[in-house]
Amino acid sequence: MDKAAARQKFIGVFDQMVEELKEILISYKMPQTAIDWFVRNLDYNTPGGKLNRGLSVVDTYLILNKKTIEDLSEAEYKKVAILGWAIELLQAYFLVADDMMDQSKTRRGQSCWYLVEGVDNIAINDSFMLEGAIYILLKKHFRQDSYYVDLLDLFHEVTFQTELGQLLDLVTADENIVDLDKFSLEKHSFIVIFKTAYYSFYLPVALAMFMSGINDEKDLKQVRDVLIPLGEYFQIQDDYLDCFGTPEQIGKIGTDIKDNKCSWVVNQALLKVNKEQRQLLDDNYGKKDDESEARVKKLFHELNIQQTYEEYEESIVAKLREQISTIDESRGLKKEVLTAFLAKVYKRSK
Amino acid sequence: MDKAAARQKFIGVFDQMVEELKEILISYKMPQTAIDWFVRNLDYNTPGGKLNRGLSVVDTYLILNKKTIEDLSEAEYKKVAILGWAIELLQAYFLVADDMMDQSKTRRGQSCWYLVEGVDNIAINDSFMLEGAIYILLKKHFRQDSYYVDLLDLFHEVTFQTELGQLLDLVTADENIVDLDKFSLEKHSFIVIFKTAYYSFYLPVALAMFMSGINDEKDLKQVRDVLIPLGEYFQIQDDYLDCFGTPEQIGKIGTDIKDNKCSWVVNQALLKVNKEQRQLLDDNYGKKDDESEARVKKLFHELNIQQTYEEYEESIVAKLREQISTIDESRGLKKEVLTAFLAKVYKRSK
Repeated sequence: MDKAAARQKFIGVFDQMVEELKEILISYKMPQTAIDWFVRNLDYNTPGGKLNRGLSVVDTYLILNKKTIEDLSEAEYKKVAILGWAIELLQAYFLVADDMMDQSKTRRGQSCWYLVEGVDNIAINDSFMLEGAIYILLKKHFRQDSYYVDLLDLFHEVTFQTELGQLLDLVTADENIVDLDKFSLEKHSFIVIFKTAYYSFYLPVALAMFMSGINDEKDLKQVRDVLIPLGEYFQIQDDYLDCFGTPEQIGKIGTDIKDNKCSWVVNQALLKVNKEQRQLLDDNYGKKDDESEARVKKLFHELNIQQTYEEYEESIVAKLREQISTIDESRGLKKEVLTAFLAKVYKRSK
Repeated sequence: MDKAAARQKFIGVFDQMVEELKEILISYKMPQTAIDWFVRNLDYNTPGGKLNRGLSVVDTYLILNKKTIEDLSEAEYKKVAILGWAIELLQAYFLVADDMMDQSKTRRGQSCWYLVEGVDNIAINDSFMLEGAIYILLKKHFRQDSYYVDLLDLFHEVTFQTELGQLLDLVTADENIVDLDKFSLEKHSFIVIFKTAYYSFYLPVALAMFMSGINDEKDLKQVRDVLIPLGEYFQIQDDYLDCFGTPEQIGKIGTDIKDNKCSWVVNQALLKVNKEQRQLLDDNYGKKDDESEARVKKLFHELNIQQTYEEYEESIVAKLREQISTIDESRGLKKEVLTAFLAKVYKRSK
């Protein structure tokens, strides 16, 4: 099955999932207006992204079980796809809320949910319900499985870690109070690992492992030890492209400088500036005008952050490859799971 | 131990709990500013209420096990108190968010959290973390217990039910669009049962039952069949007092009429109005001025809603007493658990 067909099949499970959730509300005798609202919330906020996280649960499961999609029964495929959609629901829960907290305007080429006519602050409860849907689905499809409680613990742990990352991000980079003294590479590392790496990289693999019966803490640690730095690298790359990528490359116009983001780029710059350059950063970083942004970008070029990035990328990729090569596969884990993830990140341009 | 001492002992566990949560953040090497923020979030939003829900987990556990607080070991007391605090955390999670959605100004005699200097929309993530704390604590204290997974399922189910109730409330009673055709006693019943009764009445008892080893679905159904209508009665009483109670009685000034609330009182009125009176309601309900409110109140008096309430109260209390008297105690459930709840609600004036 080619990539587009695999994606279509995955989206088919979303439609079934919405029907199942609807049935539960009907069984509660929930009035129709509220059922319609919930369905619209699910439809508007859950698909529509790249679905990388959800699809990678399926991909990982196939690798671990040496199977193709065609080898899976409908029931088996649906279960693994539900785990994938559970991550997409978790992401939807975060994004609906993040957009409100960041006062963003658009997401995935459409208006942010809270800005849709009639929604406004109801979006807070809607985000709660996207999270709530995860546990309804896990109970329906996995309650009888020995690893059910592991799935719950994992979702709880990763959800809390993501919230911790978001908290540190929010208290570190207030859009209205620019204070570069608050930034540091340590904080950047904490933020990106907690806010992104756990749920985007570790979670999909761990879920597929549980469903494949590979649940030894030693194996979970082996994948975590690769996927967390890989997730950090992914986010550093994201920060780098926001500043140095072209709009054509990244599909949007980077705004980290104007938004006072605690980005890897500014943190590297802070390590290299002399007194004068630091003053320039203090005066221009986080300002909303194009001139200030251009001055900061010019400084980043002068400081040769591009080279710093390229050196970082080569070194982290070499390190990760080395680490993957020493993975112990004796309990069923496969190195290929990790090389597949690394291949998706290395030298991507968007 | 008298009530005040029991309350003090319960609050003592909150302090330990905050320390435990702090330790977890420290183990993650979370920067101090974010740890301080999280602790402030917990302290500001979790205690400070009447703690009825949390304390009733302890009370129910004592009744089921025929013990006094003094009979419990420190370890046993702490476990049951943690379950109580888990409900208080769930309530804090809802209230922080509800206050944002309702644009409320004060809560429990202090400014709403989102209005505290520097908080604003960060309160959304803070509410997430209050919920997240529940599962951290359950895992730490109950992971080894046979009923751990039941606790998780129960919290998930009740959380989702509460969110469903909140959703229906939000889409039914938009403060800005007054449309009494949207109201009905059926919707009122759904809203109060889902938004309040499950987490305030059923959840504390079910948690204490699981910890006491009384987990037969027949017993859970027995208590649910009493506690859900009892919770509905509690909320109907709340609606009634908002309109007919004195500020001295209820400790606040009722605002349901001005706030366009889908209250039991207006729903009863809608059943009784003639065409003219309906016009008066359409013209004045949900208006922010005192004159409109006074007109609505006068109509409620004319329609004799007070008598309707008194009749409702006598009839529901008689029905609940009858139901409690037929409870099957053969598997360890005690009628006294339910009579204690009923006694707290019947003829309360605040």
